[in-house]
Amino acid sequence: MTPNVLAGPGFFGGMFEVPCGYNKPVLVSSCDGVGTKLRIASAMGKHDTVGIDIVNHSVNDILTCGATPLFFLDYIAMGKLDPVLIAEVVKGLSTACQQVGCALIGGETAEMPGLYHGNDYDLAGFIVGIVEKDDILNGQSIKPGDAVLGLPSTGLHTNGYSLARRVLGETASAMIMRYPILTGSVGEALITPHRSYLADLKPVLTEIKGLAHITGGGFTDNIPRTLPPGTAVHITKGAWEVLPIFELIQELGNVADAEMYRVFNMGIGMVIVAEPAKVPSLLKSMPEAKVIGEVTADKGLGRVTID
Amino acid sequence: MTPNVLAGPGFFGGMFEVPCGYNKPVLVSSCDGVGTKLRIASAMGKHDTVGIDIVNHSVNDILTCGATPLFFLDYIAMGKLDPVLIAEVVKGLSTACQQVGCALIGGETAEMPGLYHGNDYDLAGFIVGIVEKDDILNGQSIKPGDAVLGLPSTGLHTNGYSLARRVLGETASAMIMRYPILTGSVGEALITPHRSYLADLKPVLTEIKGLAHITGGGFTDNIPRTLPPGTAVHITKGAWEVLPIFELIQELGNVADAEMYRVFNMGIGMVIVAEPAKVPSLLKSMPEAKVIGEVTADKGLGRVTID
Repeated sequence: MTPNVLAGPGFFGGMFEVPCGYNKPVLVSSCDGVGTKLRIASAMGKHDTVGIDIVNHSVNDILTCGATPLFFLDYIAMGKLDPVLIAEVVKGLSTACQQVGCALIGGETAEMPGLYHGNDYDLAGFIVGIVEKDDILNGQSIKPGDAVLGLPSTGLHTNGYSLARRVLGETASAMIMRYPILTGSVGEALITPHRSYLADLKPVLTEIKGLAHITGGGFTDNIPRTLPPGTAVHITKGAWEVLPIFELIQELGNVADAEMYRVFNMGIGMVIVAEPAKVPSLLKSMPEAKVIGEVTADKGLGRVTID
Repeated sequence: MTPNVLAGPGFFGGMFEVPCGYNKPVLVSSCDGVGTKLRIASAMGKHDTVGIDIVNHSVNDILTCGATPLFFLDYIAMGKLDPVLIAEVVKGLSTACQQVGCALIGGETAEMPGLYHGNDYDLAGFIVGIVEKDDILNGQSIKPGDAVLGLPSTGLHTNGYSLARRVLGETASAMIMRYPILTGSVGEALITPHRSYLADLKPVLTEIKGLAHITGGGFTDNIPRTLPPGTAVHITKGAWEVLPIFELIQELGNVADAEMYRVFNMGIGMVIVAEPAKVPSLLKSMPEAKVIGEVTADKGLGRVTID
């Protein structure tokens, strides 16, 4: 796929030549799992998208530092290896890696009878990306008055499935349920893969001040990671359309607003902080983006307020 | 631990500056799990060594390409997080990383109720190391007449536990069994951590032609990975002392010799190929090493013959 991948060493890994053109190359790595979204995949018997989830989740994680993905390794573990199921999982991994220009360089498929039961499996991923040291995005220049933009998510992405499963169920019959608010079934809404924001954000990385990937912990826990001390973010409800699946979960589960924004991305998968003067060109470059709030001084009311 | 580790980005990963001094730096990565050695740890209620296993396994894997470890990430998954157990696992990871000068840069601890039961957990690791492109060990210069050396293992390392458990059991009471041939209990022999060969081999990497880390697949599957076409290796039985735990498994399980050498390391955890003229200085530098065989022409009798 890329000339940087060298002939394999024969173990479950790989060799990748550091790309030229970096003065002070910094490797950015992340490790994560798909979590209990796997139970949705199992209930639906659909395993070709969870690989997309873990790759795109990982790509977005390192993107918050300004990093471009280089290579990815996967870890799949089952009680008894099911070659058909594993081929589906790998198809998802492979598709997503191709789409983001990342080499699927290796991985381990572990058979562990007794630990995993039936067709249960776990899937984790490891990514390594690269960024020029002076170009690392760290949010340090963020100040009150800066604009907060959001890029839409495709659904729950890879987080909030414990609450979602509690409200909507996790059986095969729960997955085929339909509600007027959804265009498809519950299962289709829940299995929708995590999207990557690399293509949207790569062209504008030098134009922005900070990024927050809205994963576990929702708005409340993820946005503060990119904020310097003394600053907070105010998010304006109604500035974007909350996805129907979240409205359904909130209504059926009678979940408080604060909890919804702490658990789910609510339709915004990536939050961008930029100076106000950059907003017009950012909106032009990323037509899906919306201004969803602004940076304020931290008045001790919480780093993220939403109303 | 190292100045190359940059301030964390706030997600479960990390940033690591590529070390200076490389002309064409190549990243060597590997992903692996501890496998069913975890069941031995559970039976013994001893979780502070499995971290050592996965780190050293990974370090040895990338060492076969000539790579020095840079950083490591772990993936731990449980049904319900047990902070005491996880602290023990991380202690092992951390100790081993320190010993090999590798930064434990991040990781993910996933709670997945329903997938893992009771105190069951899975542990996988991901390592990235570095090697100068021109210094990659690839065995290409290996030719008939070259010497084959071995460095001793500490036990099963991280492979062969399915067979070992079948023969010796995997209950707490099986673990406290004692046999005259063993100095300690069965559990003590089985839980002994995988050792790293980095300190032994780093000083002599330019003196050798190829390395094979004896993991799953034993001698039979691992040695050919470092051999160029047309060559084979003959291993001389009796050239080293087979560890008592392997003798016990073979005797109790009535396992054929060929199977033993295909499943286990039999007391040799790393195989080194070098030209005969280098052997005296290699043995001086690595007093534990032994000449255990030689490279021959491949006569179609198998890439690895043992007798």
